[in-house]
Amino acid sequence: MRMFDIIRKKRDGEELSTEEIRFFVQNYALGEIPDYQASALLMAIYLKGMTPRETADLTFAVRDSGVRLDFSAIDGVRVDKHSTGGVGDKTSLIVAPLVATLGVKVAKMSGRGLGHTGGTIDKLESIPGFKTSLDTKEFVRIVNEVGVSIVGQSQELAPADKKLYALRDVTATVDSLPLIVSSIMGKKLAADDDCIVLDVKTGSGAFAKTLGDSKKLASAMVDIGKRAGKKMLALITDMDRPLGNAIGNSLEVIEAIETLNGNGPKDLTMLCLELASNMLALAGQGTREQCRTACEKALSDGSALRTFAKMVKAHGGDESVIYDTSKFAKAKFEFELKAPKSGYISAVDTEGYGRASLLLGAGRNAKEDEIDYSAGIILKKKTGDFVNEGDVIAVLYSSKETSFVEAESVSWRSTMILDSKPKKRPIIFARID
Amino acid sequence: MRMFDIIRKKRDGEELSTEEIRFFVQNYALGEIPDYQASALLMAIYLKGMTPRETADLTFAVRDSGVRLDFSAIDGVRVDKHSTGGVGDKTSLIVAPLVATLGVKVAKMSGRGLGHTGGTIDKLESIPGFKTSLDTKEFVRIVNEVGVSIVGQSQELAPADKKLYALRDVTATVDSLPLIVSSIMGKKLAADDDCIVLDVKTGSGAFAKTLGDSKKLASAMVDIGKRAGKKMLALITDMDRPLGNAIGNSLEVIEAIETLNGNGPKDLTMLCLELASNMLALAGQGTREQCRTACEKALSDGSALRTFAKMVKAHGGDESVIYDTSKFAKAKFEFELKAPKSGYISAVDTEGYGRASLLLGAGRNAKEDEIDYSAGIILKKKTGDFVNEGDVIAVLYSSKETSFVEAESVSWRSTMILDSKPKKRPIIFARID
Repeated sequence: MRMFDIIRKKRDGEELSTEEIRFFVQNYALGEIPDYQASALLMAIYLKGMTPRETADLTFAVRDSGVRLDFSAIDGVRVDKHSTGGVGDKTSLIVAPLVATLGVKVAKMSGRGLGHTGGTIDKLESIPGFKTSLDTKEFVRIVNEVGVSIVGQSQELAPADKKLYALRDVTATVDSLPLIVSSIMGKKLAADDDCIVLDVKTGSGAFAKTLGDSKKLASAMVDIGKRAGKKMLALITDMDRPLGNAIGNSLEVIEAIETLNGNGPKDLTMLCLELASNMLALAGQGTREQCRTACEKALSDGSALRTFAKMVKAHGGDESVIYDTSKFAKAKFEFELKAPKSGYISAVDTEGYGRASLLLGAGRNAKEDEIDYSAGIILKKKTGDFVNEGDVIAVLYSSKETSFVEAESVSWRSTMILDSKPKKRPIIFARID
Repeated sequence: MRMFDIIRKKRDGEELSTEEIRFFVQNYALGEIPDYQASALLMAIYLKGMTPRETADLTFAVRDSGVRLDFSAIDGVRVDKHSTGGVGDKTSLIVAPLVATLGVKVAKMSGRGLGHTGGTIDKLESIPGFKTSLDTKEFVRIVNEVGVSIVGQSQELAPADKKLYALRDVTATVDSLPLIVSSIMGKKLAADDDCIVLDVKTGSGAFAKTLGDSKKLASAMVDIGKRAGKKMLALITDMDRPLGNAIGNSLEVIEAIETLNGNGPKDLTMLCLELASNMLALAGQGTREQCRTACEKALSDGSALRTFAKMVKAHGGDESVIYDTSKFAKAKFEFELKAPKSGYISAVDTEGYGRASLLLGAGRNAKEDEIDYSAGIILKKKTGDFVNEGDVIAVLYSSKETSFVEAESVSWRSTMILDSKPKKRPIIFARID
C-alpha cells in the first residue's frame, strides 16, 4: 500500500477502504508518512468529503492509535457528555456532579483550552489545590466513592488526533465534518463509557453556523458512537451568544457553583437541566420528565453542590471556596463597559467576546502560555435586554491594566445596540438520537 | 500576508491575487514556507483550479524565481519547440537542426528524463564525446556559427519549479492544468526566445487523454506565452502509439539521423516537417507551404544532417558516427518479440512500451540511476499493420539478459492483435494560435 495512491484515490472522489484509512492513520502517527503527504490527503478529504463508513473507519483508526481505557473497575453505568465547544461553556462543571448525585457514574477526561478561555481542566485548576492529574487507580477510586471525577486527558489517548489536529490547524483543514467527527469521537471512544450525550453548538460562535450543518454533524457523531456500541444522543444548542454571564476560568467556576446552588443564569440552568436529564434517561434512570424533576430537586436542595464539593476535596482542592466563592483570587483590575446609547442588545458576536477574554489573559495564544485564572468578562446585559445610555453592559477583569485597551475595542465591536427588540432564539433547537 | 489565508482562499474556490501567488512561490523557493502548507495549497489548486490570470501569475512567479537568460548576443530570430512528452519522441533532435539549416536560430535548453527513456540531453550524450554542459559564451558562439546548440537546463533556471515538481510528484498533484502550464511555461519563459511552438500530445500515452483536454492545455500555454510577449502556436499531435519505431537513447538518435537523411519512418517525418514549417513560418520565413517545401528539400539534399553533424562536432562529439551509425555502441543482448497469432496490430499501450524500455535500462527509476544508452526497443510492426503468427513485432535490446523476462511480459500486455483493421488516426489533430 502506498500513501500516494491513497491521496490520488481521495483526490478523485473515490471511497477509501478500511485498510487504506488505517494505513494512513497508523503510519502517520508513527512518523512514517511525511506531513506534506498527510496535508495533501487532508485537503482532499476537506474538499471531497467522506462517506459515513469512511468517517467511522477514520474515527476507529484514531481511537486505536493509542491506549484504550478500561473502566470496568467502576461500579454502575458510566455516562459522558461532550460539547463541541463555545464561549462561556461551563456545563461540564455542573452536569457532571448533578448526574453523579442521581446515581450515574461520570469518569470524565477533559482537555485544556487553546483559544478564548481555558478548557474544563484549566477552569478546575483555578480552584486552589485541585489536582487534575491522577493515576488510574486513584481516578477509579474517586468515581466509585464520589460518583464523579474529572481529570486531564492522557497524552497516550488517541495520539494520532493530536498530530493530525496540529497539521489541520496550519493547513486550513480544521472545519471539515469527517475530520471534526473523527477527532472528537476518536478520543471519546478511547475512553470506556456506556452512554454519551453530545452538546452540538449552533450559531455564530460555533463551527456549524446553521441548524442544518449542526444536525449533520450531530447525526454523524451519533451514528459512529452507535457503531461502536455506545448509547448515544445529541442536543443541538444555541451558541449565538455566550452561555451564561461569565467568561473566564474562576469566573465560570463561580457561576457553575451558583448554578449548582439553584441560583444560576436562566439560559445556563435550562441547558444543564436538559443535558443532565437526557444523560440520566439514556443511562436508564427513568423517563426524561422523571429525570428532569430529580435534577431540579438536586439543584434546589444543595445535593448537587455537595457532590461537587466532595469531588473538589477528593482531588486535593480547597472545599471551603465552594461554599464561599469570595475566597477565589480576584483580578487586580476591572473595567466597566457602558452603553454608548439606549436601545436593545440586538446581537452579540460570541467569538468577539471570546477574543476579548483571550486578550484579557483568560486563554492561551500558544500551548506554552500561562493562564490568568481570574481574568475574563461578566456580562451584565445579554441579547434581548434593554439598556439606557451609560448602563454597564459588561465588566472586564484582568491582571494587566494595559490589556483593557484592545479588549474594550473588541468588546465594543462585538455588541450591537438597536431600537427594536430582537427575535427570541431557543436554547435547545433539536434532539438527535 | 499569511500562507494559511492563501490556502483557505483557494480551498474556498476564491481567486488568488498576483501578490498572494508571488508570495507563495518566492517564499516556498526560499524554504520559508513548509512543504506541508505548500502541498495543501497544491491539492486545493488541483481540485478548485485557477483562472487564466492566476495561471499566468503562477507561471511568471515560477519564471522569476531564478535567473532569466539573455540571448541578445545571438544574431537573428530565435525559435524554440517544446513537447509535452511522449514515448519515442525524438523530434527535437530533428527539427532543431532542420530549422537552423533554413536560417532561424535554435538556442535550446533541454532536460534529462525521469521515466521510460532519457530526455533529449540523455539521447545526445549517447553520441561519443558530446558535451551537454557549456558556458553561456560557448553556447552563444555555437548558435551563431552552426545555427543550433542544445545544452542541459541550468539549475538556476526557475528553481521554484524544481521544488514544486518534486512535491507534486509525491502528493498526487502532477496532473493539474494550471500546475502543468506554469511548470512548462515558467521554464520556457526564463529562456530568451522570440517564438515558441508547442507540441501538445494527446492520447493514451499523454497527460491529456482526450482532444478536448489537449486543446485546453494548448490554449492555456499559448495564452500565457503571448501575455509574455512571445510569438506562440501549438500543434496537437498523436500519442496513442509510440512515435517512429525506436524507443531508447542511441536507438532514437540513429532514427533521428535516418530522418534527417530523408529515410525516417513516415509518422515521425510527417510530424517533424509540420513542426519545423510552423516554427519557420512563425519566425517570419514565409508561408507554411513555402517553409514546408524548404524543409523537404533540406532533408532530401542532406543539408539538415550536415547541420546536425556540425553541432555534434562543435559540442566535442564524434562527427563520424553521424555518417556511419554502425559505429554506435550495441546492446549485448537482443530478444525478438514474435506474434502469437495472425491479425492486425489493433492498439498499442504507449505507456506500456515506455515501461518496458525502462525495464530494459533505457530510462531512470530514480534521479541517480545510470542510463544504458544502447538499451531499448525497435518496433517492427505498428498499429494498423497485419502480422502473421511468428512474425517479429519488436526487438528488445539490453545489456542485462535478465531484464528481458519482465520487459517481454510488459510488451505483450501492451500489444493487442485483433481480426479487424483499426481505424486510422491522424498524426496532427489541431493547430492552436
